[in-house]
Amino acid sequence: MNLEPVTFTPIGVVHCDFGEPEDPKTMRNSLSTLEIDERYLEALQGIERYRHVFVIYYIHRALGYDLLVHPMGDESIPKRGLFATRSPRRPNPIGLTVVEVLNVEGRKITVTGLDALDGSPILDIKPYEEHFDSPGGVEAERDPSYKPKDG
Amino acid sequence: MNLEPVTFTPIGVVHCDFGEPEDPKTMRNSLSTLEIDERYLEALQGIERYRHVFVIYYIHRALGYDLLVHPMGDESIPKRGLFATRSPRRPNPIGLTVVEVLNVEGRKITVTGLDALDGSPILDIKPYEEHFDSPGGVEAERDPSYKPKDG
Repeated sequence: MNLEPVTFTPIGVVHCDFGEPEDPKTMRNSLSTLEIDERYLEALQGIERYRHVFVIYYIHRALGYDLLVHPMGDESIPKRGLFATRSPRRPNPIGLTVVEVLNVEGRKITVTGLDALDGSPILDIKPYEEHFDSPGGVEAERDPSYKPKDG
Repeated sequence: MNLEPVTFTPIGVVHCDFGEPEDPKTMRNSLSTLEIDERYLEALQGIERYRHVFVIYYIHRALGYDLLVHPMGDESIPKRGLFATRSPRRPNPIGLTVVEVLNVEGRKITVTGLDALDGSPILDIKPYEEHFDSPGGVEAERDPSYKPKDG
């Protein structure tokens, strides 16, 4: 396996009211601003036509990880493998959140739904495409012979 | 803005039949194997309980990018900003695909739905959580005062 390191340069930064982690629901219900580097201003054209986009960001405050974790940090739920959870503490702390686009002004995008901390470096923004990103849509395009037995 | 580079080490590699890009639908209808590095074997525990997971991978064959592109390379569609498309040629060529988990055996996960080329380095795997990743679910949790006027 080729596991050579990969380096990315952030395209922008998250601005929001949360310098420290709070209740995820509270964070997602707040407004965040995605400030995109000016060199990418043109690349934002048309983003306002999407109601939802994915924000892929670097969870810059995450420190280390465990291979087995309690989902949502809830000790009443038995531990499971890290990749079967959305824990922010991961080998590659990459955050992924579907957000709603409220406003685009120049290189600043106002969104709700983001659970990133203030200052999080943004790695990529992709439009949410129902036919591609909704599992229903994925299934609809699948060759039926690939359906699992219990499907 | 702090745009310091971020370095990730892949957690595994994609194996599939596609050494070169083909029709995306053909690729997504095929099987791929996610071979995860043995150090993360434990982190896969419980992944089989999810029907769908996100695969975040490095689009290792992408070269350069343009700020304005025709969506899906279709010249009949007017150009728009790169971040309003899913073009694989991006400042940070990070691929994001929802796949269906068909089988987990040791550190190999068989999936359908992946549009990555053979040998693509895998950066992260996250369970798809309906309440978190479906825009419907996101909306349901939102404070109504944040709804855009046309909502």
